[in-house]
Amino acid sequence: MSDKSLEPQEMWAQMKKNSDGLVPAITQDYETGDVLMMAYMNEESFILTLETGYMHYYSRSRNSLWKKGETSGHFQKVISSFIDCDRDTLLFKIDQTGAACHTGNRTCFFTELKDLGSL
Amino acid sequence: MSDKSLEPQEMWAQMKKNSDGLVPAITQDYETGDVLMMAYMNEESFILTLETGYMHYYSRSRNSLWKKGETSGHFQKVISSFIDCDRDTLLFKIDQTGAACHTGNRTCFFTELKDLGSL
Repeated sequence: MSDKSLEPQEMWAQMKKNSDGLVPAITQDYETGDVLMMAYMNEESFILTLETGYMHYYSRSRNSLWKKGETSGHFQKVISSFIDCDRDTLLFKIDQTGAACHTGNRTCFFTELKDLGSL
Repeated sequence: MSDKSLEPQEMWAQMKKNSDGLVPAITQDYETGDVLMMAYMNEESFILTLETGYMHYYSRSRNSLWKKGETSGHFQKVISSFIDCDRDTLLFKIDQTGAACHTGNRTCFFTELKDLGSL
């Protein structure tokens, strides 16, 4: 980071949080441009992501911090990171080890709506 | 849509909603792969998007339905649409007329975190 960069805590303070106090983070394959997944960050996961260079999320269902790849080995190394114009969504361009999706698919967005069947 | 496709109302019923009853929708330029924006859909905007082939959103701040490009002319034509593995996020590959961002930038994600300054 350059000398002018804000600290991660200061960046977090400038973001608009959703009703759960979280910020959605989109990951995109930095080489292919494929959108891989979307998950949520709390302050701790955001700071850890910037400090370690690897994607960390906050699991709403498990109510806990989560380093992507911790159990699967499918880590996501941050290449570059962006915030949108109204500062309520993050975009990370990443180097994905293995599959982003827990199903084994490269991306979580592997189902076209037209192919969506009944549950 | 093929004969096997669900109706938009049935698709909506199968999605997990966030705490506000909405589903986040990511748009991606179908040619360049650039992630353009992320906004939210309610049932009405989701159905209108599928029925008209143009992106509609729900504005949380204005509490109203919103057709993208209605005032700016910067419409977003849907090319293909996807849902993620846990059915709580949508991805639309679109043909963007003009700029996606109200600032005039092509994408809303034009600010790198390292360049984020104090407010």
